[in-house]
Amino acid sequence: MPRFFKRYAPPGTSPGLLTIPAEAPARPVSLAAIYYHDEAFEEFTPTRVAEALPYLSRRGVLWLNVEGLDRSALEELGQVFSIHPLTLEDILHTGQRPKIEDYEHYVFIVQYLFRHRKDATDFHLDAEQINIVLGSNYVLTVQEGKPGDAFDPIRERIRSGHGRIRQMGADYLAYALLDTIVDHYFPLLEAVGEAVEDLQDELVLQPSPRLLPRLHALKRELLFMRRTLWPTREVVLGMMDRIGNQAIHAETRVYLRDVYDHAVQAIDILETYREMLADMVDVYLSSVSNQINQVMKVLTVIATIFIPLTFIVGIYGMNFNTQVSPWNMPELNWRYGYPAVLTGMALIAGGMLYYFKRRGWL
Amino acid sequence: MPRFFKRYAPPGTSPGLLTIPAEAPARPVSLAAIYYHDEAFEEFTPTRVAEALPYLSRRGVLWLNVEGLDRSALEELGQVFSIHPLTLEDILHTGQRPKIEDYEHYVFIVQYLFRHRKDATDFHLDAEQINIVLGSNYVLTVQEGKPGDAFDPIRERIRSGHGRIRQMGADYLAYALLDTIVDHYFPLLEAVGEAVEDLQDELVLQPSPRLLPRLHALKRELLFMRRTLWPTREVVLGMMDRIGNQAIHAETRVYLRDVYDHAVQAIDILETYREMLADMVDVYLSSVSNQINQVMKVLTVIATIFIPLTFIVGIYGMNFNTQVSPWNMPELNWRYGYPAVLTGMALIAGGMLYYFKRRGWL
Amino acid sequence: MPRFFKRYAPPGTSPGLLTIPAEAPARPVSLAAIYYHDEAFEEFTPTRVAEALPYLSRRGVLWLNVEGLDRSALEELGQVFSIHPLTLEDILHTGQRPKIEDYEHYVFIVQYLFRHRKDATDFHLDAEQINIVLGSNYVLTVQEGKPGDAFDPIRERIRSGHGRIRQMGADYLAYALLDTIVDHYFPLLEAVGEAVEDLQDELVLQPSPRLLPRLHALKRELLFMRRTLWPTREVVLGMMDRIGNQAIHAETRVYLRDVYDHAVQAIDILETYREMLADMVDVYLSSVSNQINQVMKVLTVIATIFIPLTFIVGIYGMNFNTQVSPWNMPELNWRYGYPAVLTGMALIAGGMLYYFKRRGWL
Amino acid sequence: MPRFFKRYAPPGTSPGLLTIPAEAPARPVSLAAIYYHDEAFEEFTPTRVAEALPYLSRRGVLWLNVEGLDRSALEELGQVFSIHPLTLEDILHTGQRPKIEDYEHYVFIVQYLFRHRKDATDFHLDAEQINIVLGSNYVLTVQEGKPGDAFDPIRERIRSGHGRIRQMGADYLAYALLDTIVDHYFPLLEAVGEAVEDLQDELVLQPSPRLLPRLHALKRELLFMRRTLWPTREVVLGMMDRIGNQAIHAETRVYLRDVYDHAVQAIDILETYREMLADMVDVYLSSVSNQINQVMKVLTVIATIFIPLTFIVGIYGMNFNTQVSPWNMPELNWRYGYPAVLTGMALIAGGMLYYFKRRGWL
Amino acid sequence: MPRFFKRYAPPGTSPGLLTIPAEAPARPVSLAAIYYHDEAFEEFTPTRVAEALPYLSRRGVLWLNVEGLDRSALEELGQVFSIHPLTLEDILHTGQRPKIEDYEHYVFIVQYLFRHRKDATDFHLDAEQINIVLGSNYVLTVQEGKPGDAFDPIRERIRSGHGRIRQMGADYLAYALLDTIVDHYFPLLEAVGEAVEDLQDELVLQPSPRLLPRLHALKRELLFMRRTLWPTREVVLGMMDRIGNQAIHAETRVYLRDVYDHAVQAIDILETYREMLADMVDVYLSSVSNQINQVMKVLTVIATIFIPLTFIVGIYGMNFNTQVSPWNMPELNWRYGYPAVLTGMALIAGGMLYYFKRRGWL
Repeated sequence: MPRFFKRYAPPGTSPGLLTIPAEAPARPVSLAAIYYHDEAFEEFTPTRVAEALPYLSRRGVLWLNVEGLDRSALEELGQVFSIHPLTLEDILHTGQRPKIEDYEHYVFIVQYLFRHRKDATDFHLDAEQINIVLGSNYVLTVQEGKPGDAFDPIRERIRSGHGRIRQMGADYLAYALLDTIVDHYFPLLEAVGEAVEDLQDELVLQPSPRLLPRLHALKRELLFMRRTLWPTREVVLGMMDRIGNQAIHAETRVYLRDVYDHAVQAIDILETYREMLADMVDVYLSSVSNQINQVMKVLTVIATIFIPLTFIVGIYGMNFNTQVSPWNMPELNWRYGYPAVLTGMALIAGGMLYYFKRRGWL
Repeated sequence: MPRFFKRYAPPGTSPGLLTIPAEAPARPVSLAAIYYHDEAFEEFTPTRVAEALPYLSRRGVLWLNVEGLDRSALEELGQVFSIHPLTLEDILHTGQRPKIEDYEHYVFIVQYLFRHRKDATDFHLDAEQINIVLGSNYVLTVQEGKPGDAFDPIRERIRSGHGRIRQMGADYLAYALLDTIVDHYFPLLEAVGEAVEDLQDELVLQPSPRLLPRLHALKRELLFMRRTLWPTREVVLGMMDRIGNQAIHAETRVYLRDVYDHAVQAIDILETYREMLADMVDVYLSSVSNQINQVMKVLTVIATIFIPLTFIVGIYGMNFNTQVSPWNMPELNWRYGYPAVLTGMALIAGGMLYYFKRRGWL
Repeated sequence: MPRFFKRYAPPGTSPGLLTIPAEAPARPVSLAAIYYHDEAFEEFTPTRVAEALPYLSRRGVLWLNVEGLDRSALEELGQVFSIHPLTLEDILHTGQRPKIEDYEHYVFIVQYLFRHRKDATDFHLDAEQINIVLGSNYVLTVQEGKPGDAFDPIRERIRSGHGRIRQMGADYLAYALLDTIVDHYFPLLEAVGEAVEDLQDELVLQPSPRLLPRLHALKRELLFMRRTLWPTREVVLGMMDRIGNQAIHAETRVYLRDVYDHAVQAIDILETYREMLADMVDVYLSSVSNQINQVMKVLTVIATIFIPLTFIVGIYGMNFNTQVSPWNMPELNWRYGYPAVLTGMALIAGGMLYYFKRRGWL
Repeated sequence: MPRFFKRYAPPGTSPGLLTIPAEAPARPVSLAAIYYHDEAFEEFTPTRVAEALPYLSRRGVLWLNVEGLDRSALEELGQVFSIHPLTLEDILHTGQRPKIEDYEHYVFIVQYLFRHRKDATDFHLDAEQINIVLGSNYVLTVQEGKPGDAFDPIRERIRSGHGRIRQMGADYLAYALLDTIVDHYFPLLEAVGEAVEDLQDELVLQPSPRLLPRLHALKRELLFMRRTLWPTREVVLGMMDRIGNQAIHAETRVYLRDVYDHAVQAIDILETYREMLADMVDVYLSSVSNQINQVMKVLTVIATIFIPLTFIVGIYGMNFNTQVSPWNMPELNWRYGYPAVLTGMALIAGGMLYYFKRRGWL
Repeated sequence: MPRFFKRYAPPGTSPGLLTIPAEAPARPVSLAAIYYHDEAFEEFTPTRVAEALPYLSRRGVLWLNVEGLDRSALEELGQVFSIHPLTLEDILHTGQRPKIEDYEHYVFIVQYLFRHRKDATDFHLDAEQINIVLGSNYVLTVQEGKPGDAFDPIRERIRSGHGRIRQMGADYLAYALLDTIVDHYFPLLEAVGEAVEDLQDELVLQPSPRLLPRLHALKRELLFMRRTLWPTREVVLGMMDRIGNQAIHAETRVYLRDVYDHAVQAIDILETYREMLADMVDVYLSSVSNQINQVMKVLTVIATIFIPLTFIVGIYGMNFNTQVSPWNMPELNWRYGYPAVLTGMALIAGGMLYYFKRRGWL
């Protein structure tokens, strides 16, 4: 299956049918819940989704994190929290566009978390779809279950009670998740920047045909990031549009605006790197044509100096009979014929070198 | 007639005149009807359109599928269902843009269903115009009658009674048809992705001038798809705008939003492939100029090594008379003249090779 | 006067002054009128505009067609139908952009009718400005008077009474004229498509430097068409916006939408051809650089095979004295010296050919 | 100071400070006034701005034209007509963008009048900033005072009383000025068109590296025009938006629409020329690479014909001793050796020529 | 850390946490305050922010300028003026986009002040983030503390009491700051213009491969400026949108419009230089390919003249035995053989030179 793709059900299938493609690896599901209000918090690891149900009727916020994609776990999640089948389908069929969608009882947000891998010559992105279901007093997050947990600092903030997170509602938790996701772009873009600068250095020091595929590969990774960054900006705007509805409170606006600002900045930086890469392709192509030019000049100089000289030595290699006529190559019998020819050729070569130097070919 | 074209009546013709171009092959028309409500369903194969008329006055939904384009069948369809002549003209003159249009009693939708054919070097798309007429309690679909029926899974869902389709109205059936059409883009795009990757592999392993026309041919197919995908997105948006009017109910909104999302995703993937193809043209052109560069270098190295050597051997092929003067080529009579010249030439060649190596030409 | 240009009065001239440039050829004006309502029609050929005046007070529609541009005829037209001087100026100064403008008593529409001329290598467009003045119960059309009449089919429809044209008002007649004008783009675009395909075939079979100017000439003709097609779309939209005002009735909307659809389709096709032409320039340039590459390879192969061989034969053409020393070219006196050298050179040439073959240069 | 620039005061200066840069040449100011209403007109040449003051309280329109930029004259103008210091600053600091701005008692319009200079190879634009202050019953125009007066035809229309200008208000006079300014673009664009065609002809007949800088110079002049033409269109739109306010009457709308139309047409033509110039750069680059191709072919043909022949004559120039062995170059002693070799070489050369001809290299 | 970057806190950090990256150099903070109303002004240098507090309750405007970024000083500023933690975070994490944001009691504006450094071959921009907090009767400005103070002329205007600044409110002061910032772009763009023209001159006089990286470096600096200029325009628009709210009075509108106009003009000039640079890359690449062409021609002329001549002298260097047959190279024994051959070769060379001249290769 090519890159940039989403999983899809066969065309014509009923919507909301949770079909896991056969080739998908089985990912064991693990749950982690945290329940908090301004005065207390409680952390637990339910084995089934239903165990989280009692917390929904209390005051405070419940955050249930699901790691791994499993059809039966998703179906249980759907029943306990009244999740629409289309939402479940979008969670299961990873590769969705980042988006924000209203459902009757909740807002559904799709985002991506990027990780990068960099070796000597390659820069490779890996993306994990993060699904956020924001209800009036709960937040569900469903991750694909790739290694590494980006949300630990938020858990730590809840535990410590520092900052405002414990005083605010579920919308603030959703904001904190979005903020973390957007802020993950900055170290990533920093790494991209370093990769761009590495390429640029190599381009100046030793332009080689191996650079172009690497330039294009990096461009492709940026294209991939861009495809998620632009809609991420839309998602944050969408959150701000929903203030007043859907349990998103006006106090969160100033924080969402901050996330929006970061997203726009990340886009700015990304577009700048894209323009720089495009310029670098130009520079590379020009340096190649410049190399051809250099090689051509060396060839031309050597060939144009020696071709006339070789002609001259060819003349005196002719076998005209000097004895039948004084007109036939008398030079051959001159006393200083040979030194005269050598001197003449040296003068010709010197004159040519001078001429080439003046034309800037050397 | 060139590709990308629509059939058209001669300019000045009265609108709604059903003129079939002479060269159009006769396509026998076949009808298939299915009538259902939440408790029952009935399938039948009418021989004439009029046989479907009685079902229109009952509760439930009638879906009449017409395969093949035939003037008289279309005229009967127009009379039985009060279809506007301009609608009939659009159905007959295939090659319309995907669109959604309101008429007094129904909504008219034009879509395309793509099939692809792929051989060793070519990727070829074939498109069939799908016309959907959505009335208050019926859906008409008119297909050109090319082989293969994409809507069978929907019929199966009606028969089985699974999912919601039997509980919902004609608008949900229209949604299901659109959903199927949009979902057909994904396997298609997957095939495109494979074709793109095949080309990319060949580009790296053995760039040949035969690749460029294939790149452009694939680009052209994508251009063709793009011309239908963008308006498809507009059509789905148009369905959502009409909620409340034209027998499209609010409950269908969440499903239409899902189709919209898929259409946007398909566009995203398509645009990504288009950008990749554009990059590949760059890479190809650069690999060609790189080849020229390589060839130039080999020529230059060989020529610049042998041209001076040939000059030297030319010198000692001159016929200056060594007997008239000790100045005339005394080397010829030296004891070690020949080995000395050979050694000198070897040193020159070696020095040049060393110089070229250091400049990175070898 | 360069192409793409409009006639203009000297800057600072009073608006509405009907100045015909001196170089404009005298075009004799001819009038043709047709008057109709649902029950009858009457056709006549007035010699002066004023003869049409009595029909304006009767029920029914009057269509007066003016062929040719003549200052005094236009002034009479202006007086009889109360046409604003700026309208008359726009009619006289051909080369206006397609547009729709409201005046107090009428709507003024400018359109173009294209004719094309195609010879072995050229595709040339010729455009005629068509002016339509739509009043409450009359339509005036003013044509430049170039040969060929595109509106005859409409006259025929009025005469025959087929279709709706006799039942509808002046707005429907204006629609019919627009429809005819837009539908004229399709055979034109078909011809363009054939020209594009001819060029593409030549490009593959025998790319020659003569193709590029032809590509650009065709591109320029498409640019010219594009400059009228896009505003044509705006004109039709403008007609739809004016429904309710200016004697354009709601019943005409569905027909105007159809024209709009055709205009958008024509634009689509046009843009597709433009993209194809741009691609073809790429293909051409690449095929040229590929030819250079081929030529380079042949030169390199021949030169690199013969240059070393020529060096070798040069060696044995040296005149070292074999008698003064056994070190001086003893090969010359060997029994099999000559065959050995020939064999050695054959081996070198063979080895090089094998090497070039393996590198893919042959 | 580079081209495309505006004069500016040092950053941090108080707004509305009338600082004339030291290097600005002193331009003596001259005034010209014309006062008119439907029944009479009066022309006079005030020496000070204040002399025009009494006319402001009478019915009718006063048009005061100021030629030349002088700080004290502008300050007097500011006091007499209550002009805002920012307006005066914009007038003095020439190089403003074309714009329209509301002030309390007047509308301020900035426009440009272009003059062109054309010699054998160059096309050079010169722009003069025209400032128009439109009050309720007066119009002030301030010009930089470059030679040539574009507004004479308008004065002539006022004097003669032809046309509507004497019947209408100050807004119509402002329209007439704008109309004249926009209409000046057409002869200019005609000259551009001729320059484009000249370049195109040269490009076809004798492409030389001197053409490219001229192409780019012309492109730069068009860029310069474009920077004023697009905002000119905005200015006219702005006039139409202000109808009803600021003493711009509804009757002027139809005339402003006409100016708008001309501005759009001028933009259209300009953009067409820009596209043509971009194409011409392509054609030029391709013709250069085609020339390289031609030169390469000649070189290749001559070199590949003579290199093998030179090798052959080199063989028979070897000095193998024919006397020590019958294997050593027996051809040298054959009776027809020399003619045979010559014939063989002629055959080889002929074969090669035939082969090159078939490959299309000759 | 790559260019174009902003400082950021680790992802997941609580918002508004003032973390200074470890590598940030300690910048000592210095304060400067100026308090004024229409009748008086007072300037002082507080050591702590709190010293400015009493002035807030008086009539008049307080302007507090903070040079240098220090966490504790910012926290005190936040407490005294009730600044939101997110504002403080934006101030500390320099590299924000230019923006305008509403908070409850103030408007927060981020801008940049550019300084440029130019040496023989390089043009380098340095940007300082300027933060403006506009309250009802105070303005805070926080600068990074780089050397040079752009706002001194404004202080001078307050001290002198010239202009309106002392009569107006805090919003006018904010306008004056913005105006100064925007006006700083003009000398900068002038310097850019000079750099562009220097490059253009070098490009014409001596195109060298070292120019391309310089072109791209300048392009990158312009890209950097552009990234701040466009949002600067938005900020000024944002100020105008807030007229009526947030203590921005209607009288300031005309001044803000003036700043807006300057920002648009700066953008215009910037975009023009960007287009010129893009053209210059074209010209450079074409001049390189033109040089290749020149070099090719010289090589071709010399090679094609001497290759046939060398062949001829090769012929007469063959050793056919003239004694065994009158057919074997009788020319060698002719009386005028040698002069005849020399003359023949001179004729051939002359003919070729004439042919090349006629083809325009010399």
